[in-house]
Amino acid sequence: MKEEKQLTLSFWFEFASTYSYLSAGRIESVCKKENIRIEWKPFLLGPIFKDQGMSDSPFNLFPAKGKYMWKDLERRTKKYGLPFSKPDIFPQNGLKAARITIANLDQNWIQSFILETFKAEFYSKLDISDRSVLSDILRSLNQDPENILNISESEENKNKLRSNTDEARSLEIFGAPSFIANGELFWGDDRLEDAIEFLKTK
Amino acid sequence: MKEEKQLTLSFWFEFASTYSYLSAGRIESVCKKENIRIEWKPFLLGPIFKDQGMSDSPFNLFPAKGKYMWKDLERRTKKYGLPFSKPDIFPQNGLKAARITIANLDQNWIQSFILETFKAEFYSKLDISDRSVLSDILRSLNQDPENILNISESEENKNKLRSNTDEARSLEIFGAPSFIANGELFWGDDRLEDAIEFLKTK
Repeated sequence: MKEEKQLTLSFWFEFASTYSYLSAGRIESVCKKENIRIEWKPFLLGPIFKDQGMSDSPFNLFPAKGKYMWKDLERRTKKYGLPFSKPDIFPQNGLKAARITIANLDQNWIQSFILETFKAEFYSKLDISDRSVLSDILRSLNQDPENILNISESEENKNKLRSNTDEARSLEIFGAPSFIANGELFWGDDRLEDAIEFLKTK
Repeated sequence: MKEEKQLTLSFWFEFASTYSYLSAGRIESVCKKENIRIEWKPFLLGPIFKDQGMSDSPFNLFPAKGKYMWKDLERRTKKYGLPFSKPDIFPQNGLKAARITIANLDQNWIQSFILETFKAEFYSKLDISDRSVLSDILRSLNQDPENILNISESEENKNKLRSNTDEARSLEIFGAPSFIANGELFWGDDRLEDAIEFLKTK
């Protein structure tokens, strides 16, 4: 019997990143259509921006670019049918959300957690660095917030996230979202389709 | 008789810009299909980057981003059927080419000049700040290089380019290529289709 290997796309995302929200909001339906497995890779962009000498989001460092980005995000969320409302705090600290994600990648509720967290941030104007915001999301998914938050803050789990960020660095990832298709880097929500195309034709 | 106004898309480009090459290489066929008039708007990105505190191209300031950009450009030129070979000098000084362009926007050979100049830079590995490179292009289009170069360096024409760059600033343009559709800014070759869509539905 011939076995066909399912194609896998690695999706590198950061909870603070506006364009990561766009990809998180549409990657499942796009990949399902193509029968592609998604490898969810949360990481932290802060240390990587710091490597590049940036102490803040480029959207804050360059105000004209930032102003445009919010307009662009408004148009794109509309195009993709995702809810959007400009958050009061930007960028937000996605550390806790990333730790919860990495500790629960094998759970069937984790994709909902990821998307609900992005929506809390970029639609409900909540602060996702706040334990109670994350607890509410976990509770809405019928999970035990206390237990999950505690496990996510274990040294072992913290190290898992650190090693994801190190792996991102070694893959020469410099922004989010990024996709790795057959070892090749594609950057930005606009390249999701190209990454999938590359995966299929290799 | 009912008169239908032809839609116009403003195309803001900089000769130094890699992604401006992509748009210059495909905008005519894309707009022709939609019966959209193109307003060609050369400008200089250098002063605008300087406003943002950048003394060089972001692709040089952030090496990981730069390395990725060349890979992305290789893939995109292939996708669009444009010739590509990484130039030895980047970014190049597009001042002379921009001045020639702005002095000759009403000439029927100017679109060929624009595209041939981009190809000289991003395929033939030539330096477009070199008078002789621009002269060769003009000669290939049956134009008199000496005459055109002299006119392009008149004070009046220099001011035309300065005022284009000032206009770009006032439109809050921060990068190239940019498109203005019904007064709304779209940034990047990836947004050409969205800009056209916006123009058509307004």
